[in-house]
Amino acid sequence: MEDFTQFLVVFSMAAAVGVLSTVFVLTWVLHFKEGLGWDGGLAEFNWHPVLMVIGFVSLQGLAIIIYRLPWTWHCSKLTMKFIHAGLNLLAFILAVVSVVAVFDFHNGAKIPNMYSLHSWLGIGAVVMYCLQLVLGVGMYLIPLAPISWKVAFMPFHVYSGLFLFTSVIAVSLMGITEKLIFGLKDPKYKDSPPEAIFVNFLGVFLVVFGVLILWIATRTSWKRPSEQIPHTLHTNGEGEEDTAKVVPPLSEQVEEIAVLEADVELSAEIRRRNNKLDTEDN
Amino acid sequence: MEDFTQFLVVFSMAAAVGVLSTVFVLTWVLHFKEGLGWDGGLAEFNWHPVLMVIGFVSLQGLAIIIYRLPWTWHCSKLTMKFIHAGLNLLAFILAVVSVVAVFDFHNGAKIPNMYSLHSWLGIGAVVMYCLQLVLGVGMYLIPLAPISWKVAFMPFHVYSGLFLFTSVIAVSLMGITEKLIFGLKDPKYKDSPPEAIFVNFLGVFLVVFGVLILWIATRTSWKRPSEQIPHTLHTNGEGEEDTAKVVPPLSEQVEEIAVLEADVELSAEIRRRNNKLDTEDN
Repeated sequence: MEDFTQFLVVFSMAAAVGVLSTVFVLTWVLHFKEGLGWDGGLAEFNWHPVLMVIGFVSLQGLAIIIYRLPWTWHCSKLTMKFIHAGLNLLAFILAVVSVVAVFDFHNGAKIPNMYSLHSWLGIGAVVMYCLQLVLGVGMYLIPLAPISWKVAFMPFHVYSGLFLFTSVIAVSLMGITEKLIFGLKDPKYKDSPPEAIFVNFLGVFLVVFGVLILWIATRTSWKRPSEQIPHTLHTNGEGEEDTAKVVPPLSEQVEEIAVLEADVELSAEIRRRNNKLDTEDN
Repeated sequence: MEDFTQFLVVFSMAAAVGVLSTVFVLTWVLHFKEGLGWDGGLAEFNWHPVLMVIGFVSLQGLAIIIYRLPWTWHCSKLTMKFIHAGLNLLAFILAVVSVVAVFDFHNGAKIPNMYSLHSWLGIGAVVMYCLQLVLGVGMYLIPLAPISWKVAFMPFHVYSGLFLFTSVIAVSLMGITEKLIFGLKDPKYKDSPPEAIFVNFLGVFLVVFGVLILWIATRTSWKRPSEQIPHTLHTNGEGEEDTAKVVPPLSEQVEEIAVLEADVELSAEIRRRNNKLDTEDN
């Protein structure tokens, strides 16, 4: 990686803001609110912001950039795929528990479920996240899907992953807004008590976390080097017309990332099959 | 463009959802609320959601994808830059008027300004949008900045543009949440009166609009073909070693988009200067 220091600075900032968000959401519910519990009351509700910030925002953010961490590049792509899927699965489980906590609290307090825009978009995000997880595992972890499908699906997998992450942060900000309006009575939210200012900062941190994670995720120069097969073509010299390519039209560059990732998998698969055949022949 | 039909479908959907959002926000304030006025009261406040949806969301979305519209490709890049900057300037002006409307209403109703997370992030977005506009014009419209600066700044210009657009939608969703909680008293938001359901749909449309605009903006295969100089290299045949390049490492692809855009400008500038010298010589 050419600009390792730059990566390290941005990643450290993202990690720091992620940890800060976790500290802030815990301080919010433990210091300003009713603490944590599973009693059908407000202490149960409080698991909702805590698990959303820790799981659905922070863990999902880590899952998105896990391939970018240079100290994981010695691990196989398959190992990293399992870690990526595992972190996303954990984030999903925490999100589901977090939603159950709200439904429990609402039912106990006779508050209707699913009336707000926050709840509509939030449930939408959880359902789509589940779909993304199932499709992702089915397409890229279970070795059944044809390469052409993997290639065709990759831009959608990447885009919907980043879109879901962004949506979850937006929905969290709406949730913070709701909770501060409903939860602060005397003084009210508009009177800016310490809790309001404190939790507003939590919202700002979530936005900064999103900016940094999405920046890391969209810098292709920070990708795992093993995915960059054509890089080696630079050193091939002349007379390599079969393998050396002229630069593709820019129009194909983003799609090519998906194709090349699939190429890596295809080569690996061919090698595996050849090895298997060799073993069987012997 | 290879996949013109695909583009047309996605663009038509984005346009339809953009128009639908405008119809919904106007119906909200004209049918469900107090209408529009400039009286320091609720009718003045209502300009806030209207101008935000029409200006800061829809016009900004159009400004972002303006280069992608195939029926503008016969226009010069400079013309398109002026349209891009003009639409963004108009969106900014509408956003400022929209913020003034809220401050006027708050001051009249003795409601504090700038206490909510919505207001913090909203003002942050307006200020950063202004900065983005000034830097964008200074860097890419006023012909003073050196090419190296233009190249270095392009990834930040693109990223912060898409980030600001996303932020404005997120902040709008928070604003809708606030207004439905504060504005619905009997029945309340949680009782799901027709207005609540109607405006929740407005929020969903804004998210769908964002998804479609960001999809269009991040498909490099839908870029203006004139920016794709290396495309012509495919037809150059052999013996073009000075100009033909081997495929760059994927690590440099996104940055290369900026470099190549600057290349186009550099070539044009060199041609202009040469023409000028020729004219002066003659």
